Parts: sequence; structure tokens; C-alpha cells
Amino acid sequence: MENITQLLFILFLIYASAKLLGELFERFKQSAVIGEILAGVILGPQVLNLIGTSEIFPVLAEIGVIILLFTVGLQTRTEEIMRVGSTSLLVAVLGVIFPFVFGYLYTLIIHHPTVEAMFIGAAMVATSVGITARVFADLGIVETKVARVILGAAVIDDVIGLLVLAIVTGLGKGTLSFVKIGLITLEAVGFIIFLIIIGRRVVHRMVPRVASFRTKDAVLSAAIILCLFLSAVSSYIDLAAIIGAFLAGMILSGLNLEYNLSIKTESLYNFLVPFFFVILGSWIDLSIFSQPTLLWAALVITIFAIIGKLLGCGLGALNLGKKEALMVGFGMVPRGEVGMIIASIGLSMKAITSDLYTVIIFMVMATTFITPPILRKLVKKVRSET
Amino acid sequence: MENITQLLFILFLIYASAKLLGELFERFKQSAVIGEILAGVILGPQVLNLIGTSEIFPVLAEIGVIILLFTVGLQTRTEEIMRVGSTSLLVAVLGVIFPFVFGYLYTLIIHHPTVEAMFIGAAMVATSVGITARVFADLGIVETKVARVILGAAVIDDVIGLLVLAIVTGLGKGTLSFVKIGLITLEAVGFIIFLIIIGRRVVHRMVPRVASFRTKDAVLSAAIILCLFLSAVSSYIDLAAIIGAFLAGMILSGLNLEYNLSIKTESLYNFLVPFFFVILGSWIDLSIFSQPTLLWAALVITIFAIIGKLLGCGLGALNLGKKEALMVGFGMVPRGEVGMIIASIGLSMKAITSDLYTVIIFMVMATTFITPPILRKLVKKVRSET
Repeated sequence: MENITQLLFILFLIYASAKLLGELFERFKQSAVIGEILAGVILGPQVLNLIGTSEIFPVLAEIGVIILLFTVGLQTRTEEIMRVGSTSLLVAVLGVIFPFVFGYLYTLIIHHPTVEAMFIGAAMVATSVGITARVFADLGIVETKVARVILGAAVIDDVIGLLVLAIVTGLGKGTLSFVKIGLITLEAVGFIIFLIIIGRRVVHRMVPRVASFRTKDAVLSAAIILCLFLSAVSSYIDLAAIIGAFLAGMILSGLNLEYNLSIKTESLYNFLVPFFFVILGSWIDLSIFSQPTLLWAALVITIFAIIGKLLGCGLGALNLGKKEALMVGFGMVPRGEVGMIIASIGLSMKAITSDLYTVIIFMVMATTFITPPILRKLVKKVRSET
Repeated sequence: MENITQLLFILFLIYASAKLLGELFERFKQSAVIGEILAGVILGPQVLNLIGTSEIFPVLAEIGVIILLFTVGLQTRTEEIMRVGSTSLLVAVLGVIFPFVFGYLYTLIIHHPTVEAMFIGAAMVATSVGITARVFADLGIVETKVARVILGAAVIDDVIGLLVLAIVTGLGKGTLSFVKIGLITLEAVGFIIFLIIIGRRVVHRMVPRVASFRTKDAVLSAAIILCLFLSAVSSYIDLAAIIGAFLAGMILSGLNLEYNLSIKTESLYNFLVPFFFVILGSWIDLSIFSQPTLLWAALVITIFAIIGKLLGCGLGALNLGKKEALMVGFGMVPRGEVGMIIASIGLSMKAITSDLYTVIIFMVMATTFITPPILRKLVKKVRSET
């Protein structure tokens, strides 16, 4: 406890700079997430080197990302995934296949091993629901058909992304075995289906009882307990902890409005999630900008990430009309949490190099940076023509 | 990251058992806090030994107690402290002097050093606002004059308790010097007055501007930033971190209702505060029950803690009538967070022995256990007579 003062100052520095830079980036019509990552770059070993080596901040970051995926899960209703038409499904699936194949092939072509190529492909797959939804809310077009298709597809591709994450995590730990892929897929799918069907019913039957408990906010406490438990179990059976957190949220999504779970977890989200992005940022290797080959790879990956979604999602949404398909394509471009999580898992299990980790972070930042202005122009163009 | 599964399971165990035992204790009309401490005893080295030695959980506990005192501060309006009449002030001051003197003298009499006696006296001083308020809310008598006097006095005695904490913390670090006591008192009082007068104005001028920021819940973020900053500064100038957290809350208390700060910090409180009580519980040495001398000391200290408040607060409230004075006296009996914090600080700086730490925890638990049933009987008796 003798260095508690130091820890408190670092805690203050991380949180305050994340919030301040987040605010700054929102003022420049960018995502606050970018500001938080930048705070990590500045506080990290690349610039000021203030975060230190305490294991506390990575653990706070892990709790933060668990809360983040739990919150995303709370807004992901299983019925919505079922109900969204074939368009969303096609947009999601094609929007997963194209970027994955592009990323996978390109990584192989620049002479990296297969596991690494799988990780890069996987990290290029998942659209960030948060960023997509936020951009559309900012533009005030959440209620349009285009937006609904995108949001539906983003939900599906998030689940696919989590599945892909489960597969590559398993791959990163062992050798490339198709039996193993099958088993991991079965395990992941089985775990997910069990939770969605059995777990969901049990939870929906339990929660009204918990609501009559005497403890304040008993339902919120039960939700957090479920989140921590499924995160731990998920991690134990070699899935990522965040898959459990996401599923805990999704299981509870039907009760979200009744018990205000999203609203009640806001301060937890507000406090803990920035630690994840700041710590992620602190891992970024800035030397990319002094290494032409790496910068080149980052630009190519970024272009493939954009073209992959434009082609895949655009093709999937062609029945909506050409301009609408283009909007869907661009709406699916921003990558976020899941891509960075896959990259960071790959890095932590030494399945990808820190060079390629930096390339992925660059891609995530670039696709997030680029989307709001382009979407804004597209929407204005369509509006002025009608 | 290799033992992240293990950390997640411990996180789950701590949180889930704290909430479950809390619920159980509330059902038996006891405070949930006792259940949370008991969870710590069970998970700690005394019984199951599941918490391990990671520095993460004590740090989570520290963040938890910072959030706890911040929340208490949010509900402590400076004006209320000023406005409550001489009765509350007299109740608070006499209710501090009597238990302190009793604890101090008794510890000296059983041949312990002066610093230790000061710590024991200090730990017997502060009434737990939370427990007092909760008991009165449970009894539905928050709006009575007795309750108002108690709540006002509890607020004042919390501030005095924090001041005493600052003084004994300083004493625990050095030798017993009256110049030093004067300087620490000056420093503490100066810090507090500066924050209440200057800090409060600055904050009240800044917050409406922050409210127009683009980031979601910008005022909440600013409040958390202030809390972390003042905790760090407070810890840096050798006051306890929680004093800064309490002052941050109190500075913001005037804006609490307007910006829903108490409500918005609920999930943060819900998640983090149990870690404090569980970790506190894990430090309890159960061997007290096999050591007659220690158990004897614990019982004597507990009796002095009760009689001290009954005499001091009862005398202070005599102008309300005899039965009312008795209710005020019993209403001020429960000790809580602050007493345990003082004991834990004393333990961590080796100013008190683990024996006396256990005695204090016993006293806190006993006074909290004993109050609800006695108060309930007193209130019913008064009601049946009128």
C-alpha cells in the first residue's frame, strides 16, 4: 500500500486524459474512442512512459472490455438476429468473407505464417456495432431501412466475429488442425446455443424472483454476477472472456428495458471502459511511421479492409438499390473493439508479431476515422437528390 | 494474462458471495455490510483461502472505498452542516469525545503504547452515516426531529472522524509531537476549507460548462476525475485518499440532484464497494474467539463504544426529552466504514497490532448488529405510548 499515491495518480491520469482527448475528438466530429487510444499512446512507453508496469491497469482494462461487451450484448436481442431478413444475413456473411480472405491472402503473400494470416483475417472481420450505431445516430437516420439492415448485419457479424475469435484463439494455442477447428467450433457453438436456449430461459425465470430481493438493485447485481461467471467460464473453456460477457448481456437483453440494465451499467461503463482503450493505445508501436515497409502494409491492409466491406456488404445489399448498397457498404466499414481484441489476443499469445499488431490498430483507427465524414457526404448527397 | 481465468473466478467469487451474504443478512433484518465482511472472512485465509495474494483485489478495494466515501460526500451538503442547530453539533462533539476518551484510556490501561491508544480511540469515534440513515429509512422515521438531529450530528461527526483520521495517520507515521499535530490539523483544516470555499466555487462555475460537452455523461466523468484527483492529492499530502474522495463528493453535493450524480454512480458503487468490505473481512483474525483475553478486550471495547455514544450523544440531545435522547444515543451507536478504515490504516502502518485490529472490527460488527433491533423496540415503545 506504500505506493497507493502513485497508483491513484496514474488512475487519475489515465481516466482524465482518456476523457479529455475523447471530448476533443468528438468536437472534431471523430469518435471518442480514437481520443482514448491516443491518450494511451501519449501516457504509454512510446511518449511519456507514465503507466508503469503494475498488473493492475491491464486487469482494469480486462474488466473494462468485459463490461463493454456485456453492454453490447444487452442491446443485442436474439429475436432481432432471427428476425432481420436475408439481406442483413447476406450483408453480414459476405462482409465477413471478403475482408477475411483479403487479409488472409495478403498476409500469406507478404510471407507470414498461416496462423498469423488467420489472425489478421479475423481481425478484419467484425464491424463495430457501437461506432456504426453512433454514426447513424449522429446523422439522425437510425430509423431508415439502410440503417436497419446495417444494424442487423452488424449484430450478426459481431457474433460471427466472436466465433472467428474463438476459432483463431484455439488455433493460436495449438497447431492448425481441422479436427481441432471442428471441435472448437462445436464447443463455441454448443456453449452459445446452450446459453441462448437453456440459459436464457433459466435466467428469465430467475430474474423476476431476484427482483423481489431486499438488496438494493438486486437485478443489476445478479446481472453482474452472471457476466463475471460466464466470462470466467468462457475463459476457462478456452474461449475469450469477452464472449461470455457478450452472451451474458445477450441472455439478459430481453429484460434490459424492464430493469434498466443498460442505463444502470452506464457509470461502470463510463469508468472502466476507457482503461481498455488507453491500455490498448499504450501497446501501439509508433515506429510504424518510421518504417516504410510497415506503413505500406498498414495502408494496404486498411484499403483491403475498406474494399472488403464495400464489396461484400455492397453486394449483399444490392437489392436495396445502388446508392443504398454503397451506404450499407460504408456503414459497415468501421472496425472497433473486436478487431483490436483479436489483435491483442494474437499479440499476447505471440501468434502475431507486434508489427502486425500495430498494422491492425492502424487499420482500426483509420477505418473509424474515415467513416463519419464519408457517410455524412453520402447521406447529404442522397438527401439532396430526393 | 495466463492467469486471467483465475483472476476472473476470484472476481466472481468475491462479488457473488458478497451480494449473496448481503442479501441473506438483509433478510434477517441485519445490515448487508455484515454479510459482505463475512464473505471476506469465508473467502480469506482464515477459512477457504481463495483470494490469493494478487495486489489487484486490495487495489479494487481501495477504489471501492474511494467510491463509497465519494458517494457519502455527494449526500453531505455543506449548508446542512451549517444549518443544523446547536443540538446536532453538541451531539456530534460529545459523541466524539466520550468514545475517544473511553477507548484511549482503556487501551492505555491494558498497557498498550500511546499511538495505539490514539488509533483505538479514533476508530471508536465515527458513526456510520450509511448505517444510521438506512436503519431510520427501514423504520420509516427519517422525517422526525430525532432522525434529523441524528443525521445532522452523523454528518458533523463524520467530518470530525475524518479529521481525527488525518491526525492519527500523521501520528502513526512519526513520533508524538504537538507541533506536528498542530501542523497536520492546520494542513487538514486548510485543505478542507480551501476546497469547501475556493474549490466549491470553481467547481460550481465549471460544471455547467462541462454539461455542454459532447461526451456522454460529461458531468459524471468530470465528477469522477475530481474524485480521483483529490484522492491522489489527499494521499500525496499524507491525508488518507478517502478524505479527498469525501471532499470531492461534498464539493459536488450542491449539484448532485441537478445532474443525478448519486443515481449515476450507483452501478460503480454496486460493483466496487463490496470489494472493500470483502477484503476487510479477509483481514479478520478469527483466533479472537479462542483467545479469552482478546475476546474480553473486544467485549469491553464494544461496551465502551456503546456507552460512549449513549452518554455523549444522549447528554447532547437531552433538551429533546429523555426518550428522544435515548433514541439519539442508540441511533449514533453503529460504527462503520470510517472506524474500519482507521483500524486498517493503523494496521497497514503497523501502528496497531493485528489483535487490536480484530478487536475494532469486532466492535464495528457488534455495534452494527446490535442497533437495528434495539432501535426498532425503542421506536415501537415510543409509538405505543403516544
